[in-house]
Amino acid sequence: MNELILQYFQEHEGEYVSGEELSIKLQCSRTAVWKHIEALRKQGYVFDAIPRKGYKMLTKPVIINAAKLMQGLQTKTLGRVVRIYDEVDSTQNIAHTLVRQGAIEGTLVIAEQQNAGRGRMGRNWFSPKGKGIWMSLILKPTISMQFTPQLTLLVAVALCRAIQAHIPHQVGIKWPNDLLINGKKISGILLESSAEDERLNYVIAGIGISVNLLAEDYPEELKAKATSLFIEKGQLVDREQLICDFLLQLEVLLELYTQQGFAPIRSLWEALTISLHKPLRIQTAKGWVEGVANAIDEMGALWVTLPNGENIKLYSGDIELLL
Amino acid sequence: MNELILQYFQEHEGEYVSGEELSIKLQCSRTAVWKHIEALRKQGYVFDAIPRKGYKMLTKPVIINAAKLMQGLQTKTLGRVVRIYDEVDSTQNIAHTLVRQGAIEGTLVIAEQQNAGRGRMGRNWFSPKGKGIWMSLILKPTISMQFTPQLTLLVAVALCRAIQAHIPHQVGIKWPNDLLINGKKISGILLESSAEDERLNYVIAGIGISVNLLAEDYPEELKAKATSLFIEKGQLVDREQLICDFLLQLEVLLELYTQQGFAPIRSLWEALTISLHKPLRIQTAKGWVEGVANAIDEMGALWVTLPNGENIKLYSGDIELLL
Repeated sequence: MNELILQYFQEHEGEYVSGEELSIKLQCSRTAVWKHIEALRKQGYVFDAIPRKGYKMLTKPVIINAAKLMQGLQTKTLGRVVRIYDEVDSTQNIAHTLVRQGAIEGTLVIAEQQNAGRGRMGRNWFSPKGKGIWMSLILKPTISMQFTPQLTLLVAVALCRAIQAHIPHQVGIKWPNDLLINGKKISGILLESSAEDERLNYVIAGIGISVNLLAEDYPEELKAKATSLFIEKGQLVDREQLICDFLLQLEVLLELYTQQGFAPIRSLWEALTISLHKPLRIQTAKGWVEGVANAIDEMGALWVTLPNGENIKLYSGDIELLL
Repeated sequence: MNELILQYFQEHEGEYVSGEELSIKLQCSRTAVWKHIEALRKQGYVFDAIPRKGYKMLTKPVIINAAKLMQGLQTKTLGRVVRIYDEVDSTQNIAHTLVRQGAIEGTLVIAEQQNAGRGRMGRNWFSPKGKGIWMSLILKPTISMQFTPQLTLLVAVALCRAIQAHIPHQVGIKWPNDLLINGKKISGILLESSAEDERLNYVIAGIGISVNLLAEDYPEELKAKATSLFIEKGQLVDREQLICDFLLQLEVLLELYTQQGFAPIRSLWEALTISLHKPLRIQTAKGWVEGVANAIDEMGALWVTLPNGENIKLYSGDIELLL
């Protein structure tokens, strides 16, 4: 049955096909049509659906194209070794294994789907098939481990600039490294590091970008707080191009960081953030408190003034904007 | 032949047996006797050898006794789960695997022999069979990763105090966490950590203590700079007891650290160190420089004054004492 539907959509490429038309053609109920469309969506087909107009097939599931990716790469190191998987538990886990086996700096792990994608602070990361960029990048920066907060902010700046090039809306950084469009999350970053004493052995930057997800792809609990580039732009975004753009931005910023230290990165982050000079709630060891963030310091910590005038420094954790 | 030798030593327990006596008894040359003794040593038998007196068998190879270890433990958490192996590549590697599989805080990995024991800064750690304590302890401290230098110093203090109880000589800490007796290394610590952003997931403390090694056990290049508790004390040291003593010291100090912060640990470290107020050479990113270390700061960094009056802070690395 799914093949009949696909054939019909292919014959009507670029057109909206109504549910009624499909139910007559396929001799089934409109509920059955809807169920078949849903099943195809789970396989990575992307449909637009407009009430009273019907469904339009936007794209078939496409595995990220390694050849196209390599062709688009303008970096010297980052992404020069790529491993693309169809389905994995978590690209972070694969990257950890690869680095223990000697994977070089810049090795990139991409998956079409993650079954146990990990976000910050032990959270899950929703990573459906073929619609996002779910990837992990192996970095081996020669910095001491107390400077990793700087690296966290640097990766956020690179990703923000790369995404900004694909979308007309303002992309903002929520401290430390979530990316938001119109207050909804579009991307998240998870930095995992391994150190010997104070010396970083390696960092694995996990990056999730919700690229071509439709509103209906999201589970109910995410709908209010998550969005995708497709939802915001109304157009599919080229995943290979976005990956190339991000890797180039990151490589350039890492070079800048090596040459000039954290100061220029800090300025860029402050220009792109939506977390400063606004009331927010902060999760601390003692529970949630309210305050206003004023600045990022030279170590990458967030300075927050509490209502009693006290200043606290945050290196990691979670904030909620009170807008 | 080895069995005949062992039988002879058993018949003369506690006595010195001359090489000549053995060569007559076994009808072989004295060189052959020496070779057999060497072969037995490699299997973990410990012999004392005194010129013109002969050989005395001090101990047979004994696997660290888990029951005895558990009986001697006075800790609540540390060492309550123990895995003892005969021969491994590195106890650190095993501990890393175990922690990824969900091993709990305090899990201890011990090996009689390591074939690829790891020391700090990518160095090897000499770990012959049955004569030392080669172990890795899984810790899950709820501290931010920039405080790991404090933890490095804390582990050194615990180990120094535990060893001190078994030996009449002064045991000193060489920054950050080597232990020395009479200027020779008796023990080393390797802290490996894994973090998410600034949050430590876990720390694996690798500990090597040269317990019952004889001078002739050491390869030529180590003889001038390494020693063992047996060499210094002239008596075998009970490995299970020493492990129990260390775990108790460490648990007590970790509790103190949780309750009162780094200040008391810093005082203890400063009282036990041999690295302060003395000229030393320091390996920095720019090569070796000379200076004098004055103090440990509240973060656990070593403050060193260079000949030009400049002060530098060291979080990790290597120093050489210029005595």
